[in-house]
Amino acid sequence: MKHTKVKELLNSAQTLQEVYVKGWVRTFRNNQFIALNDGSTINNIQCVVDFENTPADTLKRITTGAAVALKGSLTESKGAGQKYEIQVRSLEILGDSDPEKFPMQPKKHTLEFLRANAHLRVRTNAFGAIMRVRSVLSFAVHQYFQEKGFVYVNTPVITGADAEGAGEMFQVTSLPLDNLPRTEEGHIDYKKDFFGKHTNLTVSGQLEGETFAMALGQIYTFGPTFRAENSNTSRHLAEFWMIEPEVAFNDLDDNMDLAEDFIQYVIKYTMDKCADDLKFLEGRLLEEEKSKPQAERSEMTLLEKLNFVLENNFKRVSYTEAIDILKNSTPNKKKKFQYIIEEWGADLQSEHERFLVEKHFKCPVILYDYPANIKAFYMRLNEDGKTVRAMDILFPGIGEIVGGSQREERYDVLVEKMKTLGIDEEELWWYLDTRRFGTAVHSGFGLGFERLVLFVTGMTNIRDVIPFPRTPGNAEF
Amino acid sequence: MKHTKVKELLNSAQTLQEVYVKGWVRTFRNNQFIALNDGSTINNIQCVVDFENTPADTLKRITTGAAVALKGSLTESKGAGQKYEIQVRSLEILGDSDPEKFPMQPKKHTLEFLRANAHLRVRTNAFGAIMRVRSVLSFAVHQYFQEKGFVYVNTPVITGADAEGAGEMFQVTSLPLDNLPRTEEGHIDYKKDFFGKHTNLTVSGQLEGETFAMALGQIYTFGPTFRAENSNTSRHLAEFWMIEPEVAFNDLDDNMDLAEDFIQYVIKYTMDKCADDLKFLEGRLLEEEKSKPQAERSEMTLLEKLNFVLENNFKRVSYTEAIDILKNSTPNKKKKFQYIIEEWGADLQSEHERFLVEKHFKCPVILYDYPANIKAFYMRLNEDGKTVRAMDILFPGIGEIVGGSQREERYDVLVEKMKTLGIDEEELWWYLDTRRFGTAVHSGFGLGFERLVLFVTGMTNIRDVIPFPRTPGNAEF
Repeated sequence: MKHTKVKELLNSAQTLQEVYVKGWVRTFRNNQFIALNDGSTINNIQCVVDFENTPADTLKRITTGAAVALKGSLTESKGAGQKYEIQVRSLEILGDSDPEKFPMQPKKHTLEFLRANAHLRVRTNAFGAIMRVRSVLSFAVHQYFQEKGFVYVNTPVITGADAEGAGEMFQVTSLPLDNLPRTEEGHIDYKKDFFGKHTNLTVSGQLEGETFAMALGQIYTFGPTFRAENSNTSRHLAEFWMIEPEVAFNDLDDNMDLAEDFIQYVIKYTMDKCADDLKFLEGRLLEEEKSKPQAERSEMTLLEKLNFVLENNFKRVSYTEAIDILKNSTPNKKKKFQYIIEEWGADLQSEHERFLVEKHFKCPVILYDYPANIKAFYMRLNEDGKTVRAMDILFPGIGEIVGGSQREERYDVLVEKMKTLGIDEEELWWYLDTRRFGTAVHSGFGLGFERLVLFVTGMTNIRDVIPFPRTPGNAEF
Repeated sequence: MKHTKVKELLNSAQTLQEVYVKGWVRTFRNNQFIALNDGSTINNIQCVVDFENTPADTLKRITTGAAVALKGSLTESKGAGQKYEIQVRSLEILGDSDPEKFPMQPKKHTLEFLRANAHLRVRTNAFGAIMRVRSVLSFAVHQYFQEKGFVYVNTPVITGADAEGAGEMFQVTSLPLDNLPRTEEGHIDYKKDFFGKHTNLTVSGQLEGETFAMALGQIYTFGPTFRAENSNTSRHLAEFWMIEPEVAFNDLDDNMDLAEDFIQYVIKYTMDKCADDLKFLEGRLLEEEKSKPQAERSEMTLLEKLNFVLENNFKRVSYTEAIDILKNSTPNKKKKFQYIIEEWGADLQSEHERFLVEKHFKCPVILYDYPANIKAFYMRLNEDGKTVRAMDILFPGIGEIVGGSQREERYDVLVEKMKTLGIDEEELWWYLDTRRFGTAVHSGFGLGFERLVLFVTGMTNIRDVIPFPRTPGNAEF
């Protein structure tokens, strides 16, 4: 007899004479009531054990975390909060879980403790919900782009190019560090390394993605990217997943439209598919915020916040307008900002972005047309000669979630810019080919997937929305 | 006015007065006929230029590879092979393509030449088709698992564990190789490395995946994995994408059923969505095989081969049966195999697998119940004490496409095995926890995504089915 998923049983249209389930015990009350979970849903199914006819030895082994297989009938539940329960006729212990040793006891654990047990934390309600939401959100990403005819491109993780300058890179090598081969001049001989050259982990698939967009029209990447930056913050990971669409013939306005439509689609899709998980996470957040002072609590619940993003357009504000707002803002005048905004050209810090999004506009904001000299070399120079067609999307509580731009499609202008910045043309010969042969206006953006998961789940530390976080000093598991 | 995709125009229900397209010139014939492609489909749209009223200077710039924007009307075509064409009213050159320099001229290029131009090869019919098929196949993978309630898990790329022994690993480091920090004993001081320890690129997400399956029930990974092996073959990449489902409570039979159903689903899905691309690739393969001796040509065309896989069950054969077949086979008796099969226990080589699949059974084959000592430590030991519940799926022309097993769920047996093989228990404490707390029968497999793409596209070199291949000596782009 094949077993049935808990989710299917809870959604059953009728009671059933004969059911078979397998799962893990979440709790066991009164020697009688098992709350059983199999990961298919956040909801447990109550299984009523006939304790008078079950050996005491078996009852003792029904502990939190134990794997069990149960046969019985699905009946209407007399208890509150559940439609059905299982009247157990036979019970088999598949795998024990010593209550003295199993770390995931049914009590409140700190997030730090759970991170140290990342292999087990997914057995809790919160992390089960987060990981299901993450999975559905991933699928929504693929579905959105595929429906629109985008081609999914797996850009390389190991790269010989390190010109982009998006951040510090990890080196990848198969050389023996204890006994590095040397050239006659005494330098490390990378000709002897696996790829015959110095290689790193990618910080972005954008440049490779552009080459594909200029052939396939619309592409997206969705893969791991890396930063070897020693940032021990709640918003940074050394290894994270990034989504990078790139579209030929799109200008910056099209790019903003795409990003906004995309984000709204994936949030809506996930709200439709993960109602139970999100309801649980909303409750978790409310609970967490109770311990905070009133002023720091969210004005909206999690679902209200998600609905707000669906129902409102993102506010589009030029960098120049944003600087004016910031210069005249109370925290700037009262010198409450750590970095006072004095003039046009200043790079915006997280505190400024948060002020704009959370205090001034109170909605997601798209900032665009940034000063050229604080943005990357490949961004399209505006006619004013001093700004570029860049855009950042800022989210409440999260900060920057998207960075994108229209790309500089003019070969001469691009090469000039690379020369100014000392970027090696020879190394990027293939990238420049896109401008040499059939160049055209095109645009794209990068979205840090974990920041999106943070926003949708209402979690506050990015380490809690990826299965096994990689941060300075931490590559356990 | 917004431009329309070529695919949409070719599928139009009617002629249209006013259309606007953007794309790249594939060919320009008789100063009149542009074959325009925008990547949305393998099919070009014919655009008829009014050459008498177009400046000679503009006509000269309509070259292969140039990006153009065209306005005109969509009319029924008088030419063969196309329903519609565009009568061009106005034409703008967006980006030139110097015919003396553009490498992708409309003529036959060798696959080697195209690999050296991986950033441009996607502008050819064949590679456009391959990359669209790859993308749709990826999506089919996600859709299959999501429809069945599997949770997508992003297992880490950077790992501190190197115990699995699936292959040679790349080291990841942020230490300065020119100036390595040393301990007092003179060893490299990995405490000073980014993660505070020696780290590698993952060879498999299976072990981490198992920890999630034992909470969420059914999970799958789909991400990049790495091998630092110096194999310069047409079947190996240093960086490739792997799909690894893992299911709690599944035994080896369930695992075989899942793998077979999964492969058939994704092939069927792709055949439905990519008919034009696959038809083109079928023709390409026929063309390629014309240069081969009759004996080496496929018995079936590409689409016949794909249909064959959909319509026939995979043949399930135990290792022991396979050895008997091989021992009594003509090439074994005539000593045509490089490795003669003499007795039970021999590791099967590619030549043996190919014989079984291509000559003996002539269909995909699942080999199972392998000798324990030629398989990994985590595989479930059978009651005979000498075989394990492993399975490999072998495909014609491709060889091994799937490797999987039921996992050893018994803590004591697993630890015993690890001791025998010298695998560090302390390093895998978290993996062993799955057997300490609520262990249960579970199974999974790994499928090398590029091998699947090879099979579906009919390509023969794995470097031709991934955007930017990574192989020994090659990390260009």
